[in-house]
Formats: sequence, C-alpha cells, structure tokens
Amino acid sequence: MKEFKPMDPDYEARIRSSFEKQGVMKTIGATLTKIAPGQVVIEFPYDPSLTQQHGYIHAGVVTTVVDSACGYAAYTLMAADSEVLSVEYKVNFMSPARGERFKGIGNVVRPGRTITVCSGDVLAVEGGKEKVVATMLATMISVAK
Amino acid sequence: MKEFKPMDPDYEARIRSSFEKQGVMKTIGATLTKIAPGQVVIEFPYDPSLTQQHGYIHAGVVTTVVDSACGYAAYTLMAADSEVLSVEYKVNFMSPARGERFKGIGNVVRPGRTITVCSGDVLAVEGGKEKVVATMLATMISVAK
Amino acid sequence: MKEFKPMDPDYEARIRSSFEKQGVMKTIGATLTKIAPGQVVIEFPYDPSLTQQHGYIHAGVVTTVVDSACGYAAYTLMAADSEVLSVEYKVNFMSPARGERFKGIGNVVRPGRTITVCSGDVLAVEGGKEKVVATMLATMISVAK
Amino acid sequence: MKEFKPMDPDYEARIRSSFEKQGVMKTIGATLTKIAPGQVVIEFPYDPSLTQQHGYIHAGVVTTVVDSACGYAAYTLMAADSEVLSVEYKVNFMSPARGERFKGIGNVVRPGRTITVCSGDVLAVEGGKEKVVATMLATMISVAK
Repeated sequence: MKEFKPMDPDYEARIRSSFEKQGVMKTIGATLTKIAPGQVVIEFPYDPSLTQQHGYIHAGVVTTVVDSACGYAAYTLMAADSEVLSVEYKVNFMSPARGERFKGIGNVVRPGRTITVCSGDVLAVEGGKEKVVATMLATMISVAK
Repeated sequence: MKEFKPMDPDYEARIRSSFEKQGVMKTIGATLTKIAPGQVVIEFPYDPSLTQQHGYIHAGVVTTVVDSACGYAAYTLMAADSEVLSVEYKVNFMSPARGERFKGIGNVVRPGRTITVCSGDVLAVEGGKEKVVATMLATMISVAK
Repeated sequence: MKEFKPMDPDYEARIRSSFEKQGVMKTIGATLTKIAPGQVVIEFPYDPSLTQQHGYIHAGVVTTVVDSACGYAAYTLMAADSEVLSVEYKVNFMSPARGERFKGIGNVVRPGRTITVCSGDVLAVEGGKEKVVATMLATMISVAK
Repeated sequence: MKEFKPMDPDYEARIRSSFEKQGVMKTIGATLTKIAPGQVVIEFPYDPSLTQQHGYIHAGVVTTVVDSACGYAAYTLMAADSEVLSVEYKVNFMSPARGERFKGIGNVVRPGRTITVCSGDVLAVEGGKEKVVATMLATMISVAK
C-alpha cells in the first residue's frame, strides 16, 4: 500500500457522515471498520436477505460493499468541498461468496484531481479463514458539492 | 434484438424458480416483468432502504438488478441441467439513479456453449419518462448443475 | 443511433488532423471511413504483422482500432479547444478476428461535459459477410488543450 | 506474488514458441523478459510507429502488450495440450505512456480449470525511473488445442 497525504484533515468525519446516509448500508448490515488515507474497509455479516439462488451472497451485494469501500477510499484524498461518484467499475467473481462475514477493502491505486483509480477486494471469512471472492477495478470522480 | 432459440423449452419456469430463491430480490422488492429468449427484465420501486448518500439508488443495487437480468437472459439459452454464474461485469453509471421505478434489462449479445456475453441497461422511470442510468457489459458462464 | 449536435462545426477536420498524427494507425494500415456526430468508423485490412499465435488479428490490435473509433466518436461532440483521452475501457472478445478486413465502429452512448461514455464494435468482413468479433464499453474524458 | 505450481513442466518452451508466432510482437519490437509460474513480463522500446496523436504510445499498444503478458501468465499454469484465449479485459490508463521503454507485467490472480483471472500493469521507464501508466484486469480461458 502506498502512502497518501489527505488534503482534508477531517476526511474521516466526512466519510462517516456520508456512510451514515447510505440507506443500503443499513439494509446490508454493513459497518465501516477502517478509514485510512487511500484505504477504506467495510464489513457485513451473512444474511439470507442478501442471497442469490444458491444461498450465497449475490454478486451485486458484494459489488455494493466494495464500490462504497473504493469510493470512500478515493474520498479520503479528495477536497473537503467535493463529492465522490462512481464513474464505472468492473468486478471479477472468483469464488462463491460463502462465509460468516465479508470484508470489502477499497484501495486508491492512483489519485487525481478529477479521476481517481481504485482497486478493491472482497474477502469471505469462514472458520477464521479468509478467501478472496471478488476483485474490483474502479474509476471514481470528484465533483464540486 | 436478435432472435434466439432456447435449447430448453421450459426456460421460463426454470428462471422463475431460480429468481424466487434470490433472497436479495425480495429485499429490493424486485419483480420479473419479462422473460424472452435472450432477454429478461427485472423492475423495482424506489425505496430509501436502497440508497446512497444523496438519496438516489446505490450503484451497487442498480448493478444487482441488471446483473440478475443479464444472468437470466443468458440462462434462457442454456441447457436445462445447467447453472448460470457471473464471471465478471463492468458497469458505467451515466446519471443519478433517481426515479419512482427502475427497470433492469438484460440482453444476450453472443451466446456460447460455455461463455455468454450480455449487455444490460438500467432505466429510471419518473413522471412517465425513462432515462438510462447505467449500462453493463457482462460475461456469464454455464456450469453443470 | 441517437442524434447528437456537435459544439464545434469543424469537428471532422479536427479529427482527421488528429488521426493523421497517430503513428500506430499507419502501422496498422487503418483509414477513417466515417465521421458523423457521435459515430466514427475506422477500417483496416488483414496483415500477418498484426497477428496473435493462431494467425488471427491480436486482441490488442482490435482494441487499438476500436479505442480510436470510440475516442474520436466522443471527440466529434467535444469543444474545439479540447483534447480527448481514454480513461478506461473494457472489451469482450466474441469470435476469433479472422477476415479480410475489419471495421471498428465507435458510438457515443452518453456525452458529457467531462466524461463521455462510448460503445464500440469490431466487425470482421470475410467473403462479403460481417461478423462481430469484439465489443467495447469505454470512458473518455475531455481535457483542455 | 503468490506461489503457483505449473501442471506442465515445459511451460516456458510452450510460451516462447507461442510468442514467436505473434506477428504483432515483432511489429511492436517486443521481447519476453520473464516467464515464471503465474507471471510473464514483456518489454518494448518507444517507437514513433506505435503512437497516438500526442506522440505517446497508443493505449491500444499498451493493451496489446499487457494482454499478451496476462494471457501467457495464465498459460504458465495451464495444461500442455491447452490453448489460452482472452475472454475480456478492462484497462485503466493512469498516465500518458511516455518513456524510453515499457514493461507489461501479467500476473495470475486466480487460476482455474476453465477461467483464470489475471491482473497486469504497464510501466514506462524513463531516465532510470519507472511509472505505472496502465493497469489491467483480465479474464482468460483455457480451451482444448
């Protein structure tokens, strides 16, 4: 992980406040477990209300969490008066999202004034072991509030 | 839209049964509104439990619905004893997902014995008007049950 | 195809001039065969100097041509004093790029002041028949010259 | 980097032989500089015949090289009687491809019997310094020869 210098010293409060407004994070039961310059982690427990047809977590839910983690990772490095939006992302699904808990980890790969490139991983935690279930490559944009 | 011939005449029942098992579709309030060879449409209404920080539908929820629409579009053309899985997808977000209702439309671009390429769109419906909010390009795989 | 209004009436000259500067287009033997608001087509003939290990056109060459087609499609709608850059793209390869000639078609899906989303297709032409070999979904950005 | 065990002890010869058949690699002036289980590096020098309109290396050429690097990285872990094909890839461009030399590095992220997920980076080398210009996330498939 690279070392990044946030422009806004209050980035953590800004992200916590934004996260609280994401209704879907409550629906998923997700919590912010790490906010550092260029990296954000969001975790959530398994729940049958989040599943696809085989009882595993739906690819879209996995995506939702790692998209927020990547967006907020980008947002740690953005100006205080900016908003972050997802321009686009691509996700590869590598294993069924089977587990007790899941961690969406978002990392800034290259920050920019307008465009920030992020990568993300989703880990399934089961019996104390972690397994990568999905990986994301995302483009975030900073827009004026 | 191209014309496709399903291998399994019972594809519709197979998809309805799989959709019923997707717990996340109930959470989203989504319903299957069209199943045709190579095309599936899933719709859902706006709900504050599905939002990002500005009150619009979260990109990940938009993705969840169009992923299922694309996966099932691919599944209409697969063998009766197969399962469909998302290998990967990429989504571009073109407008905020603001509206009363949303339609995720999945289309088969190129079917294959193993790999099926699909494209998808998500439309926001507001005051009788439709607007494209996101577009997906996805790779689905057929695996033995 | 949607109807788009170019901001710069001289978009065609601007694109021809930029295309002439792309050294790789000469290497590929590519020519601009259509420039319209929101759509650009670039064609090139088969050549063994552009192949992968089975003698078909390399996926990267297919990508090069459809990237330029998409970038210039976006550029038809941009301001006279702007430059266009590829932020990112995703390409699915659907058939081997086997043929006598190839057409890269770039279309604007959604234009924007900063970000323009494009889609592209590459067709192989053989014995008078056309076949889609690849499809692209791309994000272009307008930057000041 | 993870440790991978190749199924075919002769993977290096298999890849060198395939690389020799890629006509486009000669056109680019590219050479294989590393072949290890799950990782392949391909390098090429700057040349005006490979450029876009500003004189930098065209995004598609950058893509061509890192696609081959990713494909061969996947191929190191595939069976002796298999072929590797690119199903799809996504590339983010992070800086202009300006430099004296370029390195395309392909890494296996998750190998599989059918599908292998790879990530790749392209570095520009200038004045002894390396800079990441692009990053790829790719899906490769193993097919019978």
